[in-house]
Amino acid sequence: MKIKKIEPEKKQGLVVVITGHGKGKTTSAMGMALRAVGHGLKVSIVQFMKGDLYTGEWDAVKLLKDHIELTATGKGFCGIEGNPYPHSEHRQNAQDALTIVKEKINSRQFDILILDEINNALQLKLIDYDQVMEIISMRPEQMHLILTGRDAHPDVISLADTVSEVREIKHAYQKKIEPQPGIDF
Amino acid sequence: MKIKKIEPEKKQGLVVVITGHGKGKTTSAMGMALRAVGHGLKVSIVQFMKGDLYTGEWDAVKLLKDHIELTATGKGFCGIEGNPYPHSEHRQNAQDALTIVKEKINSRQFDILILDEINNALQLKLIDYDQVMEIISMRPEQMHLILTGRDAHPDVISLADTVSEVREIKHAYQKKIEPQPGIDF
Repeated sequence: MKIKKIEPEKKQGLVVVITGHGKGKTTSAMGMALRAVGHGLKVSIVQFMKGDLYTGEWDAVKLLKDHIELTATGKGFCGIEGNPYPHSEHRQNAQDALTIVKEKINSRQFDILILDEINNALQLKLIDYDQVMEIISMRPEQMHLILTGRDAHPDVISLADTVSEVREIKHAYQKKIEPQPGIDF
Repeated sequence: MKIKKIEPEKKQGLVVVITGHGKGKTTSAMGMALRAVGHGLKVSIVQFMKGDLYTGEWDAVKLLKDHIELTATGKGFCGIEGNPYPHSEHRQNAQDALTIVKEKINSRQFDILILDEINNALQLKLIDYDQVMEIISMRPEQMHLILTGRDAHPDVISLADTVSEVREIKHAYQKKIEPQPGIDF
């Protein structure tokens, strides 16, 4: 059997949105990052609302450090039970994340930029509508932008090329099963 | 800020199903594989319907070979336009994949076993209902099983602990944009 390799005639940067309330949004973005490594592409991941709770991708990408870099700027999910930080502090973190995002875009070093949980950050007013639109519009034509997180703004969906909504059919926590490493974080 | 690390009191193998018609099912499974590496877990990926068309994860996982192994047994998607192989040949491949899956389970070497596109394989009668049920029931209690692919069988959904359905809101191909490496394959 001959293995075919698709070579697109035109390399075109896509805006991809992964939204919805089910498991598999950040996870899917991590999968794209992994795949991209196989194609020799460079990936930067900026996590907007993660940073206070360990997640496996932090150490995994260190093994792929020639290909993927990851910056976790957040202090966890703003407003959820058990998160002690005020809105103003979450907003400052998200604003810092935006500055980093702009640096990554302007560096022209990356083929794929993953903006993890940016949809929630907008919905929670940690960043502003105009700021998200600015990021999307300033990217080079060949750079892919992946925006994850629930409650994606309708205008972001409208601008995007590919949008998936991950629906939760069921989740182990409903059976009181604890979060499991490698699966849930 | 102190980074918390969740340590579940009980390590419990989960059955996770990622189904639906949108982009992000295999991708999500690859993301779980990547995450698992950060937790020091061992992952085996068996791809049921892939093998004739290059996809980035094949080379990416080689860089993580102490943690992830991948076997692509398939000859592409049975029945889709341009795929030249008869049903009998696809079925033989899928049956071979099942044999490999059983070996992986019996080896007791893996924390996570990813059965990529197994849902389609069942729906297309490349494997049988009883065979899928056997695989699910024979796994060790602490092994996670991840089943991807559209059209998951209702009984598989019923047995699973966590199920996400990825819905396609839109996709770049609808605008005649070619598949892009790192994003689409």
